[in-house]
Amino acid sequence: MKVVSYRQNGKPGVGVVVGTRGIIALSKAAPALPDDLRRILEIDPTLATVRAASAGKSADLSFDEIELDPVIREPHATWALALNYKLHIEETGLTTSPVHPQIFLRMPICQVGHQQPLWAPSQKVAEAYDYEGELAVVIGKPGRFIKRGEAFTHVAGYSCYNEGSVREYQGHNRQFGLGKNFERSGSFGPWLMTPDEFGDPADHTLVTRLNGIERQRARMSGMLFDVPRIIEYLSEGYTLQPGDVIVTGSPGALPLRPGEKPEKPVGKVIVEGQLHMRPGDVCEVEVDGLGVLSNPVITDPTPVR
Amino acid sequence: MKVVSYRQNGKPGVGVVVGTRGIIALSKAAPALPDDLRRILEIDPTLATVRAASAGKSADLSFDEIELDPVIREPHATWALALNYKLHIEETGLTTSPVHPQIFLRMPICQVGHQQPLWAPSQKVAEAYDYEGELAVVIGKPGRFIKRGEAFTHVAGYSCYNEGSVREYQGHNRQFGLGKNFERSGSFGPWLMTPDEFGDPADHTLVTRLNGIERQRARMSGMLFDVPRIIEYLSEGYTLQPGDVIVTGSPGALPLRPGEKPEKPVGKVIVEGQLHMRPGDVCEVEVDGLGVLSNPVITDPTPVR
Repeated sequence: MKVVSYRQNGKPGVGVVVGTRGIIALSKAAPALPDDLRRILEIDPTLATVRAASAGKSADLSFDEIELDPVIREPHATWALALNYKLHIEETGLTTSPVHPQIFLRMPICQVGHQQPLWAPSQKVAEAYDYEGELAVVIGKPGRFIKRGEAFTHVAGYSCYNEGSVREYQGHNRQFGLGKNFERSGSFGPWLMTPDEFGDPADHTLVTRLNGIERQRARMSGMLFDVPRIIEYLSEGYTLQPGDVIVTGSPGALPLRPGEKPEKPVGKVIVEGQLHMRPGDVCEVEVDGLGVLSNPVITDPTPVR
Repeated sequence: MKVVSYRQNGKPGVGVVVGTRGIIALSKAAPALPDDLRRILEIDPTLATVRAASAGKSADLSFDEIELDPVIREPHATWALALNYKLHIEETGLTTSPVHPQIFLRMPICQVGHQQPLWAPSQKVAEAYDYEGELAVVIGKPGRFIKRGEAFTHVAGYSCYNEGSVREYQGHNRQFGLGKNFERSGSFGPWLMTPDEFGDPADHTLVTRLNGIERQRARMSGMLFDVPRIIEYLSEGYTLQPGDVIVTGSPGALPLRPGEKPEKPVGKVIVEGQLHMRPGDVCEVEVDGLGVLSNPVITDPTPVR
């Protein structure tokens, strides 16, 4: 099952995808459910009511009639991992703990849904605005001290995430802080795919394309800390909440193609094949078997003062 | 004006403090307003309607009848600063950028209100659970590219914050991550004091006491990045949201008293006078002229598996 968060004429809704062209609106199929996926997960962590309510129904809204929101509009927490693909660690030359994941938080305002424009900072503010294609995990059933072997029972589903990063700000000080949290710098979608359809993340491949050209490609089995381990680790500190999001890290960059010039390096991190996102670009993050998250890039329209 | 977020028999409310013993419940004085301070700030960033509705009224609830929640129950973002007092930077021996603040995020589940128990991790999980007394700034009016000179017009008020930290986890990797986000590890209260009563943060003093003994004392004029500068910086990246919280950093530790032994150091950071919080302790964070945030410490009751 694929579940979307959407807006129709500004009104929020949650829907179930049918085929390639439309959705079943839960406002009709299950009017007692909240209009927000996080709130639905709080009362139904496995989405059983959503599945039952949509079974056998046909689409009543086409994708043309709606705008997609981030899969979870305002998560209680969005955790993201740094340096979680073995190849990416090698290419950066950075070190990371082999025992404990490197994690940080992103806030809700920094993400948009599928096909919504990403905001590249004005050139007066920063120039190194980069894609990071990643797999997002959405928590369903809350839990504390979750063991690896039971971790997958806490997952409501999976999605694609573009963990857009502003490198100048990321390098301002020791904590990534604002560089990972620029307004509308990241994207999350197009939908949540439930685990019964998705299977084990380690069996999937992640691909990032900028203007149609592949820039990242990695088997998710190359993660340093796999999904069960990340869930186990986070749950040592707090009770994972329904709708919490774990963005599992960006893989390495593919080599530049003949004739392509590398970007001017910013700070210490130099990843040869990493290119910036610029206004006019289109960036796609694909997880095979799940779908493609695609976003155009525009300049942040807020006047710089 | 001092504004509290509270619960009475589990039901959330917002109130205005009158004298020392009670509050005016806005559910009666202004029934059209939301029962959540963040939602009130979204429609009334200066709290003018709250002020008008409570003017001349007497308390209708005593503090004995209510439990205080964190001032903002679920902020869109809680930013915290590392190494923001000049003396604290010297004592840690750590370096930080003199140009850009070092900032990270805390999530809602890691904070409790005044007099609610803080959770020290089970000793099986971690031992170095430390207080950090800090001033919290609550944003009222949203804004982007806010200049220093106008920053204070975006502040709805101030509060005390105990930025409780689990040092083992904080040191697991390069980003502080989970060590700054343990469940119920921090506290935020007792109330929001509006800027007209509070004045300039730089004119105030912060004091932290553990079991009645002073452990931190600092003039807030000792901040490396003052409140206007932090607001200016964050607003370069995103539109500050009503109810966003900025926790402005912890000052240094006072020297231990004769006969007191320093804690066993954890990782690289050794602050001689820093003591851990342990079950049975009471930790107080006071900002002069604002109030005292006091919390008992208990062991996290969640069974460790």
